[in-house]
Amino acid sequence: MVKQERAVRTRNALIEAAADGFSHEGYGPASLLAISRRAGVTSGALHFHFPTKSALASAVMGAAAQNLRGIVERCEKQTPPGGSLQILIDAGHELSRQLEQDVVLRAGFDLEGDPGCPRGIGEVRHLWYQWVRGTLESADLAGELRQGVSADHVASAVFVYTVGFQTLGRRDRTWVSHRVLTRFWSLMLPGIAAGGRSLAAAGS
Amino acid sequence: MVKQERAVRTRNALIEAAADGFSHEGYGPASLLAISRRAGVTSGALHFHFPTKSALASAVMGAAAQNLRGIVERCEKQTPPGGSLQILIDAGHELSRQLEQDVVLRAGFDLEGDPGCPRGIGEVRHLWYQWVRGTLESADLAGELRQGVSADHVASAVFVYTVGFQTLGRRDRTWVSHRVLTRFWSLMLPGIAAGGRSLAAAGS
Repeated sequence: MVKQERAVRTRNALIEAAADGFSHEGYGPASLLAISRRAGVTSGALHFHFPTKSALASAVMGAAAQNLRGIVERCEKQTPPGGSLQILIDAGHELSRQLEQDVVLRAGFDLEGDPGCPRGIGEVRHLWYQWVRGTLESADLAGELRQGVSADHVASAVFVYTVGFQTLGRRDRTWVSHRVLTRFWSLMLPGIAAGGRSLAAAGS
Repeated sequence: MVKQERAVRTRNALIEAAADGFSHEGYGPASLLAISRRAGVTSGALHFHFPTKSALASAVMGAAAQNLRGIVERCEKQTPPGGSLQILIDAGHELSRQLEQDVVLRAGFDLEGDPGCPRGIGEVRHLWYQWVRGTLESADLAGELRQGVSADHVASAVFVYTVGFQTLGRRDRTWVSHRVLTRFWSLMLPGIAAGGRSLAAAGS
């Protein structure tokens, strides 16, 4: 293995170990020594890649944002054009699945709500909010929203709901589930979707 | 001041100072010394009232649960009978107002989502969920819910939403607001409330 490849592997192992530590223990209590051990590297190697704890948190956040972008891009490609509301529903379900499986993505969301974590290290939660808002604006322009319903209001409801189930999922994983999100959309869609559309609250 | 009164005052000052510390710094990083200083008592006095950090967290949680009970009882008294959905909306608005003002209530919700905080110290979030569910069951029995809408599903949506805005409010207070909750109910009510009812999404 060439040197560069090994460096990338070490960096990724550190990001994953840090994500695990930050997510389980919180940013403040998580120990850098334990993180380097979990990644199978020396404490010196950790400091070579990430001179500070906040640099490590920032890298976790960057990787989480990258994974989130991958999720929404996949959903945008899969759903036929003209179905922005369905893309939004599908992306929410995919996000909840990935929050279950992907510790880096989960840590990104957790860190942003962690009172001990310094600000300014990036915002994966905010990125999600922006994408939700943009997608609902497209839905509005395409006449997918019921008259009088504000894309902005729906965006903030979807965002608050996402943060809610992600937060509850830290203690009890059953909250981050297909079922919980399907319920939300089943209740919400009659009030927000323009009539005559057939949307799958459970995802398409 | 008799001795007992002074003891109650000290205990309350410690609970308030601890709530502030746990809420701002997180359970793990919050220092008992800083808490005793903030309460204006010695470290010995703190340990006399609360032998462990988790005993202190448990007292904060107990006080938060007491404050939450006060909120729902006031709302139940104020709203005329037969209006369970309106009681639920009103209690949500009152909870959001109190989360803004009452550091003990806020800390109760925060502690339950704090990965560093030991479990089994009480559950104010869960208490809210139970009350929401009970109130929606009453609404269902009284025919206030649209046919086919499950009280249980609405309860989980309301609960997830509450946890969401409370979590977001830790970083940005504007999320815990009358406006954000009014938007939620405006979007949700058309899908869940039986026709012909006049409900105030902004609270009565």
